[in-house]
Amino acid sequence: MSRTLLHLDSSILGASSASRLLSSHVVDQLGQKLPAVRVTYRDLAAQPIPHLSGPYVAATRGNLAMPLDATLRDDLALGEAVLQEFLAADIVVIGVAFYNFSIASQLKAWIDRIAVAGRTFRYTQSGAEGLSGNKHVFLAIARGGVYGAGSPRHAMEHAETYLRSAFSFIGITQLDVVSAEGLNMGDAAHRSVTIAQAQARIDQTVAALQA
Amino acid sequence: MSRTLLHLDSSILGASSASRLLSSHVVDQLGQKLPAVRVTYRDLAAQPIPHLSGPYVAATRGNLAMPLDATLRDDLALGEAVLQEFLAADIVVIGVAFYNFSIASQLKAWIDRIAVAGRTFRYTQSGAEGLSGNKHVFLAIARGGVYGAGSPRHAMEHAETYLRSAFSFIGITQLDVVSAEGLNMGDAAHRSVTIAQAQARIDQTVAALQA
Repeated sequence: MSRTLLHLDSSILGASSASRLLSSHVVDQLGQKLPAVRVTYRDLAAQPIPHLSGPYVAATRGNLAMPLDATLRDDLALGEAVLQEFLAADIVVIGVAFYNFSIASQLKAWIDRIAVAGRTFRYTQSGAEGLSGNKHVFLAIARGGVYGAGSPRHAMEHAETYLRSAFSFIGITQLDVVSAEGLNMGDAAHRSVTIAQAQARIDQTVAALQA
Repeated sequence: MSRTLLHLDSSILGASSASRLLSSHVVDQLGQKLPAVRVTYRDLAAQPIPHLSGPYVAATRGNLAMPLDATLRDDLALGEAVLQEFLAADIVVIGVAFYNFSIASQLKAWIDRIAVAGRTFRYTQSGAEGLSGNKHVFLAIARGGVYGAGSPRHAMEHAETYLRSAFSFIGITQLDVVSAEGLNMGDAAHRSVTIAQAQARIDQTVAALQA
């Protein structure tokens, strides 16, 4: 069966970004395991999604009092395209840069376009229900410092914890996370070893998946 | 002594926003308590700060390989103005909207402009040191759902927890938080009462401050 993989990157550091190296490694490994996979790529740094606006939210809810101008029309088309890409994907791989203790604002802007009532979640009498369907999400996170479980700064980590909350809310139950951290706390050799170790964990994670 | 107050809003919902009502109530109360206070206002929704970019970071670190174009020059000027506003403030009041379990991407973009090595923090032999000086920060948070301590969704709250981490890192030791929550979980009367209760807590918080 052919599957669709949505690959996103959010680092602003271009080719030297560790999260980009890791997310592309996930995509390569999945491509070898699932040869018929179709990959869609979106670079959230190169083509940033604008911040969510009041008129955008009003229009998506059918409450817009003003006429649509060209900027808003383009923004609505972009938001719908981003949402459709997410809904169509069987697998989502995200390169997650860690800036100032959380995700890039570019990635938050993407989350704000895909967390849409009636499309990826809804409220019912018994609470909220996720509607994202049967997807597998991989997060490839790169951090300059050390924030892992048991470290002194663990409580300051608001990227992995945040994304777990957001994806759980919209109904994602299959979520794998591989992180490389402490990348700015040594020399280039230390950085290379840390990235290689994360890539080896990616290999193990992908190998353990049921095809 | 005259003091400078920086007032920020981040809600995209305009005049009907609860976080805007609360942040302006904080500013009004502080204005009565400290009559000589000078207020600077920045609306992060009306005049959004662009997402952080790779060339911006390179330029602020003196590492830019490419020539400055007009867009980047404007963005650098904006970032420096935003940072200067923050550094000049004795008091910072932020209206914090809660979207998809965290802050607006507009507010993250602001944080990314003020968390600057050598300006608001630095790394030393013994760790990180905040450089923001002796400021008082007030967060006025509005949430549609309920995420307070002890509630089932408390662990999904990534706005207050995030901002506490980020401001602590840059050296803010005086932080007050007033939240109104569950604002979308009842009718208009429930919402008005919830906001009035939060305003009363603001009055108490401001009254308890040393002038």
